[in-house]
Parts: sequence; C-alpha cells; structure tokens
Amino acid sequence: MALRIGIAGMGVVGQGALRILQQNSALLAQRCGQPLKVVAVSMRDTTKKREVDLGGIRIEADALSLAGAPDIDVVVELIGGEEGVAHQLVVATLKAGKHVVTANKALIAHHGQALAALAESQQKLLAFEAAVAGGIPIIAALRGGLAANRITRFAGILNGTCNYILTTMEKSGRDFDVVFEEARGLGYVEADPALDIDGIDAAHKVAVLSSLAFGTQVDFAGVAREGIRDVSVRDMHYAADFGYRIKLLGMASYDGAHLAQSVQPVLVPLTSTLASVDGSFNAVEVQGDAVGKVVFEGRGAGAGPTGSAVVSDIMAIARGDSYPPFTMPASQLTHAQRGTDASARAYYVRLSLRDEPGVLAEFTRVFGQEKISVRGITQREILADGSAQVVVTTHVTQAAAIKNAVAAIGKLGVCTAAPVCFGIEN
Amino acid sequence: MALRIGIAGMGVVGQGALRILQQNSALLAQRCGQPLKVVAVSMRDTTKKREVDLGGIRIEADALSLAGAPDIDVVVELIGGEEGVAHQLVVATLKAGKHVVTANKALIAHHGQALAALAESQQKLLAFEAAVAGGIPIIAALRGGLAANRITRFAGILNGTCNYILTTMEKSGRDFDVVFEEARGLGYVEADPALDIDGIDAAHKVAVLSSLAFGTQVDFAGVAREGIRDVSVRDMHYAADFGYRIKLLGMASYDGAHLAQSVQPVLVPLTSTLASVDGSFNAVEVQGDAVGKVVFEGRGAGAGPTGSAVVSDIMAIARGDSYPPFTMPASQLTHAQRGTDASARAYYVRLSLRDEPGVLAEFTRVFGQEKISVRGITQREILADGSAQVVVTTHVTQAAAIKNAVAAIGKLGVCTAAPVCFGIEN
Repeated sequence: MALRIGIAGMGVVGQGALRILQQNSALLAQRCGQPLKVVAVSMRDTTKKREVDLGGIRIEADALSLAGAPDIDVVVELIGGEEGVAHQLVVATLKAGKHVVTANKALIAHHGQALAALAESQQKLLAFEAAVAGGIPIIAALRGGLAANRITRFAGILNGTCNYILTTMEKSGRDFDVVFEEARGLGYVEADPALDIDGIDAAHKVAVLSSLAFGTQVDFAGVAREGIRDVSVRDMHYAADFGYRIKLLGMASYDGAHLAQSVQPVLVPLTSTLASVDGSFNAVEVQGDAVGKVVFEGRGAGAGPTGSAVVSDIMAIARGDSYPPFTMPASQLTHAQRGTDASARAYYVRLSLRDEPGVLAEFTRVFGQEKISVRGITQREILADGSAQVVVTTHVTQAAAIKNAVAAIGKLGVCTAAPVCFGIEN
Repeated sequence: MALRIGIAGMGVVGQGALRILQQNSALLAQRCGQPLKVVAVSMRDTTKKREVDLGGIRIEADALSLAGAPDIDVVVELIGGEEGVAHQLVVATLKAGKHVVTANKALIAHHGQALAALAESQQKLLAFEAAVAGGIPIIAALRGGLAANRITRFAGILNGTCNYILTTMEKSGRDFDVVFEEARGLGYVEADPALDIDGIDAAHKVAVLSSLAFGTQVDFAGVAREGIRDVSVRDMHYAADFGYRIKLLGMASYDGAHLAQSVQPVLVPLTSTLASVDGSFNAVEVQGDAVGKVVFEGRGAGAGPTGSAVVSDIMAIARGDSYPPFTMPASQLTHAQRGTDASARAYYVRLSLRDEPGVLAEFTRVFGQEKISVRGITQREILADGSAQVVVTTHVTQAAAIKNAVAAIGKLGVCTAAPVCFGIEN
C-alpha cells in the first residue's frame, strides 16, 4: 500500500520534491515504512516542458481537482500566495479528509490558525516545514526536539535573497541599488520585490515560528518590519570597524504576556554564528529555558533544500505521525499582547553633521537628556558634501529613548542627512 | 489519562529531566496532548539529598523494579554504562511491553541494534535523542526533518569535554596536561578519563549517528579513533597562522558500500562554523543529497540540555509517534564494509629536524617519492633543544601516502622528535 500524493504546482520546488521522491524512492520507503507514490500533478501550463520525468503521472490543469480525487491521500500545495487557488485548494483538501503539505508561508501567516483548526477537526495533518528556512528542519525542531522547553526568544536570517544582497554589498563594496538590480537579473528576487526587500517574506516566517515557539496566536500584522533598502556599504564598513556585521534578522521574544516580533537590519558580532552565515544561507537561533541556545544553519531556498522539507513532511504522514499543526490545538493558542522590543539593547547611530564647532556638543546633550549612555564615539571621514560622519555606539538602552534622541537630533539643524540607526544584538 | 514515567538514575541528567517535567508540566501537556507524570524514580543511594522535589514520587533502590511496575508506561534509563543494570533494565522494560528513553550512548553503540529489534517486535519506542550531542535534536533531524535525503557525510564536535580542553589550551596557551588536570578538578571529565580524552565517548556517538544517517548497521568497533593527548599549543598556534583551528571531530562518510568512521583531531578553517564552536558546545554538520549542508549547534551536556532531549523523547511517546529506533527496521540496516578515509584530504605535518645542511632536501625527497604535493612549507623557530620546527601543508593527497611519508621521515635520522600529522578539513 503506497501513500498516494498529488502535487499542485510544478515550479522549482514542485520539481525538486518530485525529483527527490523519484531518486530516493527505495530509501524513503524503507525509512517511512511505505512507498510514496506521486499519482498526479497540476500545473497551469500543461504544455510547458519540465526537467522532471512525469511518465505515469496524471497531469491536471485544475489544481482543485486534486482535492477531490479518490486516488489521492495527500495534496502538496506549491502554488503560493495567501489567497486564491492555494487557499481554496488547502481548504477543499482538508474538507475532503486528506492531508496537506505546503511550502506557503504567506498562506500560513495569514490563515494558519483557521486552517489548523480545520485540519484538527478532520484529524488530518497540515504540515508546512518548507514554509520556513528551506531545508533547515526548524519547525520539526520546535514541535519535537525542543518541545520540552519554554522558548523565550528566537532570531534568524530567514530571507536568503536579502542575505545574498547584504553579503554581496559587503564583499564587493557596491551599494544596495546596484546589487539589488543584479540579484533581480539573476532571478533571485520575487516577482514582487517588496516581499523580499521590505522584509514581508521574513515577517511571514517570524509569525509562523512565533506561534510554534511560544504557543501564541499567529499574528503577522504584529511583526514590526523594516527592510534592507536603507542599509549602505558605508554603515557596513563602519560596523565592521566596531566588530559587527549588518544582517537582516527576523526576531521574536515572549515573556508570557507580551509578544515582540520584528524584522529589521541589526548589527551582530563578527564572531557570532549568525555573522558567519553568508549568501543565500539561512540560520535560526533559538533560546530555550532548559536547552539554552541552539542554532540551525542551512540553505533557505532552492529545489533541493525546499524539496527536502516538503518530502520530510510527506514521510511524517506516511509514518502516521499525528499532531496539531501548531503543536498545541489551535483553540489553545494564547492571545498575546503586542510588545515593542521586549529587551533593551545597544544601538549604532551614524550622524551626518555639519563640520562646525559646537555640533558635537549639541547632539551629545540630546543623548544625555534621554539618559543614553554612550559606549563609543568616533568622528570618521568628511564626505564630499562637507558633512562629518560621526558614529556612536550606545550601552544598552530603551528603544523609546533612542527613537526620541534620533528624532530630536534630526531636528537640531546640524544634520546634513537623516540619522541612521540600527540595533546591536549581542 | 497521564503518561506514567519511571526514571532510573537521579544524577545530573535525571534531576534535569525531572525538573523540566515539573516546571513546564502544563505547557508540556498542551504540547503533547497528555499530562506527563513521574510516578517513580530509582537511585542507588536513596538517602542522598537531591536538589529536586521528589514529593509524591515513589523512590526505589532497585532500578529493575521499574521494568515490571504496573503503574509505569515509560522507563527512562539514566544509569549509564554499556553493560550491567542499564542493559538489563532496558531489555526487561521492552520485554515488559513498555517504552524506553535513554541517554546511554555506550549502550546504544554496543547493543543498539539488538535492542532496536526487541523494541520493534514489542511495537514500543526505544528513544535515545539524549545519547548524542545533548540538547541538539540531531537524532530527530536525521530521523525526521532530513529523512528525505541520502546522507553522504557528517562531521561534528561531539565531546564537550575535549572541546573545552582544546578551547582553553588555545586561549590560555597552557598545554594539555595542565588544562586536563584543571578540567578534571572542575568535574568536567568522566570518572574514566579515556572515555573523553581518547575519543571513546565521541566514537560511541559517531557509531549511533552513522547508523541513523546511512541506514548501516551500528559498528562501534569500526570507528578509527585518535584522542587529544597529542595536541599541543604549539600546533594550535602554527595552525592558526595557516588559517586553521584544531578540533576533535567525529566524522563518517558512506558511499553506498564503504563506511568510514573516525574520531580524530583535525584542522578546520578559522572561518568555518565548526571552528567557532567554543567551550563545552557541540555541533554537527550533515551533508544530504537534496538539502546540501545543514549545521546544528548547541550545548552538548548538562542537566538542562540533556534533560531537554530526554523529555522531548517522552513527549514523542505521549503523542503516539511510532518508528523503528534507527528509522528503518533493524533487520534492514545494511552491513557496510569498513573504509579508511573515504575522501582524500590535505594534511598538516610538523617536523622537528636537526638544524643541519641537507636536512630539508632529505624529507622533501620522501614527499616526492610518495607523490605528495606540498602546498606550503615554513621553517619556524629553533627550539631550545636545537631542533628546527618545520611545518608542511599538503595539497589533497591519499591517507596511505601521508602515512608512509611520515613513517619514512621518522626513520631518516634527521628528526629529533616524532613527526606530528593532522588532517585538514576544508
């Protein structure tokens, strides 16, 4: 008796998953006690040439037909998008009493909780390992291997495109606009670039991980979000001089009442594991009360890594694993209050100041008023426009204080450009 | 209906697991759909004061009594040792139709396959996440999240004591003997130091991971083993000059026929993730055909991390997970041929040579004869005994060639001390 699979969507991930299922079929059957058989796939354009062997597999133009097909036990949704066919297919499949595997982070970030409740009522699995961090089995770890822990915090490099752009900017010395266009030309950027560049994709993943880690309701809208458009090579070099690298991190912390979720560029120590994560790799750091810090690193996207995650979910279904999608029943997920930055942290601030006497005194007075303790201050080069570049790092301070200070300094009339401010994670 | 647990052994890990079960009890019940209740513990010395609350828990002096107790569903074996009570208890528990959770790597490395077959015949779980790499859920990852992959290789820092000693030697500049005694004084070293220092503990873990990763029979005796007694601060400093750090790695690779397993000190690039793993931390790097490289890092020992792994296994039992202990049935594990170093690699060789004319010519001739291509060679300081320290790094070469060359050079009569040789992992 084989587990019979229908795959909706034959893009990069669909083909990757199919290839694994075909190439490793004997091994997978041994490992999960049952052959895994793809009986049907759906694709919008059934005439398009694919680089996988579709021999013996039924090809459907209508993805929704998979939900009702009597010869299918599991539907793998790889269409993407939070609404439309993907959403309809997942609902229809669960209602038809079949399991669902999906790589769709937008769908889970927006509708995960309702879909989980539906899956639970049907006693079927809704599995989405591939929705976060590609081949890194972070969801399985939160649901299983780390499940003994009260998780207090996680932080991760969750968008390979942004990490590739930041890494390339730093290595090549070319600024964001140039490297972004180059990445787009290489096909590394989503059709809607904002998904990557403005941190929406990473925010989807933060929302999903938060729910799994903390047992809180999925709250995508509660993720404070800042992308990488304002990261400059200048700040990367100054940060390096202070012993830091700039990374776009998705982070969340939970104190039992307040859930703080964010995606933002931050400085991480050059010696940290996260700093060493280059190019399109992803990494996630999890802090648990018993286990301490655990870090996972691997490829965050691509046919093989994401296909690996998809197939691992199919294997769990074949083994007969049974669990609520968010580990605990959807009805028991806690409604958390949105918190801003749960923990105080240090900051990096770069000011472009008029190169005149008294200017330093003006802005340091503002820092004093906000009770911000300065850790390091260096006046760097004078730019062609005559502005002095002053970089300040602070001791740990409240987010509100630094926000007030930066706003006040911006209004002093001594700045030739808006101040730049990034958090420092230690 | 609670899952009823008996814990055999109330040492560091037993107390750690009990504390997690007590402190996080409500959360764990939500996550696994069932309360987890410790009904009995066994300890050799029932009068010894423990730092955990044993109120309401039956205390047994005889661990074996847990196997037959009608009010126990799962026995957690935390006694340790490959033979004796630990082995008897696991056998008796499985025969009594109960699940077993254990942290005992020696037991699994020596008897894992027979015990797995017994567990399968009883349709019970034999779970040992805590046996390898403490709080890192590497076994769950191999069995689940990475299960879609044909694994070709893994390498890890699997013994926190050795990693602590190496890290301390490098940071303090004090040599092995001194740091070892210090670590022993701090209680970081096993009662039988050979388990740590000579790589036996790491070899247990390699044997267990190999079986899970490759689907091969557990072959502890097939792990080539070299400990850290011969690692010197001098070699650490020379290695650093070449861009490397010395780590004790447990490694294995499998090509479908030959299984090469080893524990040995090797040089890893300073920029690699494994090089950044300091102190008592563990890390494991896994190479899969679909996922590429995935790295896991976390605490390898201690009450919290190992307790976290133990409790995660108990939770899987509560959720009703069902799988053969080595992922595929024990009877299907492949008998692999033992291979020596599957892949050719580069080497670091340090020679202590008489400071005389012609000496360099003599040993370079040997390298030429063995067709070893030299990548870098530097003559370093002259020691107090008059010997010149010459360090050679090679291009990728066969293990046999480097072994022959080092043996031949040792016999030339130009060496004032035995040559030192470590592999380089890139």
